[in-house]
Amino acid sequence: MRILIVNVNTSEAITEAIARQAQAVAAPGSEIIGLTPYFGAESVEGNFESYLAAIAVMDRVLAYDGPYDAVIQAGYGEHGREGLQELLNVPVVDITDAAASTAMYLGHAYSVVTTLDRTVPLIEDRLKLSGLYDRCASVRASGMAVLELEAEPERALEAIVRQAELAVSEDKAEVICLGCGGMAGLDEKIRQRTGVPVVDGVSAAVKMAESLVQLGLSTSKTRTYAKPRPKRVIGWPAQFGR
Amino acid sequence: MRILIVNVNTSEAITEAIARQAQAVAAPGSEIIGLTPYFGAESVEGNFESYLAAIAVMDRVLAYDGPYDAVIQAGYGEHGREGLQELLNVPVVDITDAAASTAMYLGHAYSVVTTLDRTVPLIEDRLKLSGLYDRCASVRASGMAVLELEAEPERALEAIVRQAELAVSEDKAEVICLGCGGMAGLDEKIRQRTGVPVVDGVSAAVKMAESLVQLGLSTSKTRTYAKPRPKRVIGWPAQFGR
Amino acid sequence: MRILIVNVNTSEAITEAIARQAQAVAAPGSEIIGLTPYFGAESVEGNFESYLAAIAVMDRVLAYDGPYDAVIQAGYGEHGREGLQELLNVPVVDITDAAASTAMYLGHAYSVVTTLDRTVPLIEDRLKLSGLYDRCASVRASGMAVLELEAEPERALEAIVRQAELAVSEDKAEVICLGCGGMAGLDEKIRQRTGVPVVDGVSAAVKMAESLVQLGLSTSKTRTYAKPRPKRVIGWPAQFGR
Amino acid sequence: MRILIVNVNTSEAITEAIARQAQAVAAPGSEIIGLTPYFGAESVEGNFESYLAAIAVMDRVLAYDGPYDAVIQAGYGEHGREGLQELLNVPVVDITDAAASTAMYLGHAYSVVTTLDRTVPLIEDRLKLSGLYDRCASVRASGMAVLELEAEPERALEAIVRQAELAVSEDKAEVICLGCGGMAGLDEKIRQRTGVPVVDGVSAAVKMAESLVQLGLSTSKTRTYAKPRPKRVIGWPAQFGR
Amino acid sequence: MRILIVNVNTSEAITEAIARQAQAVAAPGSEIIGLTPYFGAESVEGNFESYLAAIAVMDRVLAYDGPYDAVIQAGYGEHGREGLQELLNVPVVDITDAAASTAMYLGHAYSVVTTLDRTVPLIEDRLKLSGLYDRCASVRASGMAVLELEAEPERALEAIVRQAELAVSEDKAEVICLGCGGMAGLDEKIRQRTGVPVVDGVSAAVKMAESLVQLGLSTSKTRTYAKPRPKRVIGWPAQFGR
Amino acid sequence: MRILIVNVNTSEAITEAIARQAQAVAAPGSEIIGLTPYFGAESVEGNFESYLAAIAVMDRVLAYDGPYDAVIQAGYGEHGREGLQELLNVPVVDITDAAASTAMYLGHAYSVVTTLDRTVPLIEDRLKLSGLYDRCASVRASGMAVLELEAEPERALEAIVRQAELAVSEDKAEVICLGCGGMAGLDEKIRQRTGVPVVDGVSAAVKMAESLVQLGLSTSKTRTYAKPRPKRVIGWPAQFGR
Repeated sequence: MRILIVNVNTSEAITEAIARQAQAVAAPGSEIIGLTPYFGAESVEGNFESYLAAIAVMDRVLAYDGPYDAVIQAGYGEHGREGLQELLNVPVVDITDAAASTAMYLGHAYSVVTTLDRTVPLIEDRLKLSGLYDRCASVRASGMAVLELEAEPERALEAIVRQAELAVSEDKAEVICLGCGGMAGLDEKIRQRTGVPVVDGVSAAVKMAESLVQLGLSTSKTRTYAKPRPKRVIGWPAQFGR
Repeated sequence: MRILIVNVNTSEAITEAIARQAQAVAAPGSEIIGLTPYFGAESVEGNFESYLAAIAVMDRVLAYDGPYDAVIQAGYGEHGREGLQELLNVPVVDITDAAASTAMYLGHAYSVVTTLDRTVPLIEDRLKLSGLYDRCASVRASGMAVLELEAEPERALEAIVRQAELAVSEDKAEVICLGCGGMAGLDEKIRQRTGVPVVDGVSAAVKMAESLVQLGLSTSKTRTYAKPRPKRVIGWPAQFGR
Repeated sequence: MRILIVNVNTSEAITEAIARQAQAVAAPGSEIIGLTPYFGAESVEGNFESYLAAIAVMDRVLAYDGPYDAVIQAGYGEHGREGLQELLNVPVVDITDAAASTAMYLGHAYSVVTTLDRTVPLIEDRLKLSGLYDRCASVRASGMAVLELEAEPERALEAIVRQAELAVSEDKAEVICLGCGGMAGLDEKIRQRTGVPVVDGVSAAVKMAESLVQLGLSTSKTRTYAKPRPKRVIGWPAQFGR
Repeated sequence: MRILIVNVNTSEAITEAIARQAQAVAAPGSEIIGLTPYFGAESVEGNFESYLAAIAVMDRVLAYDGPYDAVIQAGYGEHGREGLQELLNVPVVDITDAAASTAMYLGHAYSVVTTLDRTVPLIEDRLKLSGLYDRCASVRASGMAVLELEAEPERALEAIVRQAELAVSEDKAEVICLGCGGMAGLDEKIRQRTGVPVVDGVSAAVKMAESLVQLGLSTSKTRTYAKPRPKRVIGWPAQFGR
Repeated sequence: MRILIVNVNTSEAITEAIARQAQAVAAPGSEIIGLTPYFGAESVEGNFESYLAAIAVMDRVLAYDGPYDAVIQAGYGEHGREGLQELLNVPVVDITDAAASTAMYLGHAYSVVTTLDRTVPLIEDRLKLSGLYDRCASVRASGMAVLELEAEPERALEAIVRQAELAVSEDKAEVICLGCGGMAGLDEKIRQRTGVPVVDGVSAAVKMAESLVQLGLSTSKTRTYAKPRPKRVIGWPAQFGR
Repeated sequence: MRILIVNVNTSEAITEAIARQAQAVAAPGSEIIGLTPYFGAESVEGNFESYLAAIAVMDRVLAYDGPYDAVIQAGYGEHGREGLQELLNVPVVDITDAAASTAMYLGHAYSVVTTLDRTVPLIEDRLKLSGLYDRCASVRASGMAVLELEAEPERALEAIVRQAELAVSEDKAEVICLGCGGMAGLDEKIRQRTGVPVVDGVSAAVKMAESLVQLGLSTSKTRTYAKPRPKRVIGWPAQFGR
């Protein structure tokens, strides 16, 4: 089985980290292909960048010319998943959803710890639209930007741990979701520090994608995610930025 | 005051119809500028097309090189409004929101009558995110595609009236919102046929945009709609399709 | 166009302040008529007083013997708007709704800063019934009574600013609504102090009323706001207190 | 123990019917006093009439010059209960709430069958504000006006039974609430016809009022229902209509 | 009238305290029978123990061989009430529901103060399922285990008062519900300390049970609480632990 | 990896069917152990039977004396999952949750088709508590009892297909969940007949359990699902029925 995992950021370093984490948890027969969009923001932290990433992710997946069995969109709280679901016949898994739906098996309520405060409303909104918000105790910002996660790993870890601890003590979270594709790999450290299960969305998404493929399930083509109707579309397939 | 009204479809005919309707209800001093995106689908009827339109609308507004006081996004249930709010300092009004928030002054519950069934979930989701869904009795599809509205005006009117009547009798709507930018101008006919107030989103958006400008109010730059942080963005400003 | 703006309090000073603010933002052709109820509490701060004001406002509007195009009920979180909508054919705008629905165009969440703590549940309940509560971050009390707003403007301003700041920092509001007709005119000062847009309900209501009139829209007479059925009503038209 | 039960309509016949039903279910030591407001509509069927009744009920209770232990407001879906709670120290029970909170002990979901369609939104809104709406399967209108209930008892019974049956079969109600004070006494007949428990709000309210008195419980005077602050109130105590 | 009140704990001391409190508020003709389950945990403080109690309570009631008119399940936030409703023809009242539905007549919002933090989610979930959560300001834990309530009454009182005070000042509760059958009898002391009405679930349940019996109302046998279908059931009637 | 899958019914035939289906979708290294409770109803179709099953399932799992890595509770809409989560350290997956959370990856809304109408409220309530109800379009009953599914497979298939078709056309479901452990194996046939993805809860639960084990994730022991506190428990471990 081949799974495409698409970064929403144009940072190659993040793509590599995500793909590495994905491969680490993948089943023996699963091949992970990390993809970086051809255009968009180096790091996605807001609505404009997220909308641009939405299109860039669709563009990048369509440009991939081999066969594949599932697609993972590796951005936390980003736009675009519904578009991929329309365009593709294989299952599509967003790491925001995967982390949340996995966390709900582990505790009565979960919190998300993400990067900047400005991304909190995006994550909350995506969880609401996905129908996975009811058991969300809080979405908290560590104050670390996406690119700082890699540049200052020590400080990032402390900032994330601190918010995770507050989520447990103040918001009554029983599980923590790592709210950024770039946090992949921190789960074990944060679990040790907080004592609660920590869910990394990339890992959760890989298992969910594998499960769907193994069960022979894919996106319903009735109504919402039906194929786009044939029509004149200017500028697509995009060579935006190419 | 100059208000840009941006079509989400690349159909010039729809842009003209929208701008004409907008100008018809504009205050004496208001100049309406209709804009057509440089790329995207001729008619937007689903998530992929809507995401592409989101970026195309932002691109088109940024490419406009004169001064302006407000921007209207003239698509019903489409993505992208939050991105515009980040990028711009002037107020941004989406016709979906404008129709709903206006309708709520007129009756206890409102319904939306839109084009194809597949767009219903998009409209519902946008209204939920905008916090304007509580008094929504239903979103109903007429079965008419966007481009059929113009091609077959008689049949479109009948199909819309029929769903509006069902919204009133079955769903207990007391107001009808016209759920497509391309329906601008049908409001009076539908009101006569159904006996309830009919809100055209384009018209409502013009008055809301004018009001915000006159009150000196614009998008809060605290948190969600703060300017994007300076960073490397590949392929933007876009010349997608140009 | 003539717009009646009815104070819910029997304080003439507040009526004058409200009418002054309303006229200040009105369009060139709009004439604002401030009305004070013939009976009721000098300042309305609770359910009994609010119910009495509901009837007093209806009574006062019906007693007005000239023509008019719209009515604004200038009380925050007060009862009665639905009664006016039944009795009248012209559009009715409540300043609670107008502030909230305007604020929702400006940020992801809004807070209301009002007078006494006891009025908070009234405002929350009215916003819930109006379907405008989903994006309400909080309703906060300044602790200043209605009549203290005028008597001690300096202290009132400080108390309101303090709660507005907490709404932004603690409750994540991105917009502030001034939760009392008697706060009209403070918006600019509070905006300067908090850095977020501030919506005055009186001003917002004037623009909304003008917009509805210009669009030819008024209350739906289907179902909820149909004219009262003809029947024997004792003591009405009221000369309560006259 | 003496319980005042206040009709919201000015029809003496309805007051008598209500008081008779209340006395029939009252405990041995409970004395029921039926009160008719001094002003207001003969029958209350809409917002204007309901707001007028709200004040008329408060006025009537305050005019009662003997001692009493509890007050019941006998109107379904009417305004005003919160005002009484502020003004009085004894417990206040609204029949809308009493029927609903009693029904919730009897089945997984309940429906209300009321008079005219226009009163349905009022009932729904009151149940929402009272926090008793979650288990409401539906509010259905029989199409019979309040005064027709007495004038045409046979036709009324059939119309109510028909809606009750639909509530059970279509809306999955397991209990029916009689949604009008004037329906008191029909419960047994409707139970026989539908096979589900039927709750009469007047009866339920009497038992709830007795229970609160026996438990020594009354309205909290903290915050929402604190006594009105001392202030100048014109036209009150009202001699509206006297 | 004979009312069975079933403890969920196997502690006889708690059964006695509950029955004593129940008898104290019962009407003259009401006989209270306290029952202790034959098996289960000495004190119920979590899901496993609560599920075991659910079955033990049903078992104990079925083993009672005299006639009775109503059954009260005296556990706060425990499982099982729906099972009793299926098995019995007489009304069933859970003290969690009784406290909440009574509290809602007394203030705009209520809080529950319970024992251990781990029981908070159980109580919240039961209130949600019962449709009584909307006006719940908070469920707070005193940190006192069930058996400590009796062993250390002074310390328990202080801990409960402290959380009740926080519920009023922080969460805006206007009424306090005592969230444990074992707290029966503390209501008056806590009322004096906090100044708000305090509802004891056992007392509230007795009055509600009496009311339902007096009104001739019992569980609907349509749909959810219909008698179990005849079928082979191994190990039931249970002699678990006997 | 060894996964225990526990039937909620005491029918051995159903246990075998469930285990067969589970093994069919299990990963190569996964060993499935089907367990039948020692006591309880032959088929579980209501609250009493479901509560008895809750305890019987916990009893049966604790009686299993080998090692295992995860437990699946194979009952749709049944009580008890939270108890297992407290008692065990390995992950616990309920098929109700597994079907729903899997379905949410496949379409905008899902419906459940179950057995008897009386079980519908149980399923709805469990989905609400699990936080997976938001995207539930409906829960529909086929009218077939659990044991009829095996006795009359042809008729059962037709009844389920009919409700699935109505769920798609009337309720706008885009995915169907099979709402009974005993329906395992029907998914492909129903998919062919309805054209939408069909999720079997048993299969979905197996993949979810495998995923959690592979990710090293298990139930949070903070707060809700902490181990029961040490205390005297009569009649446990149970030999109910043995």
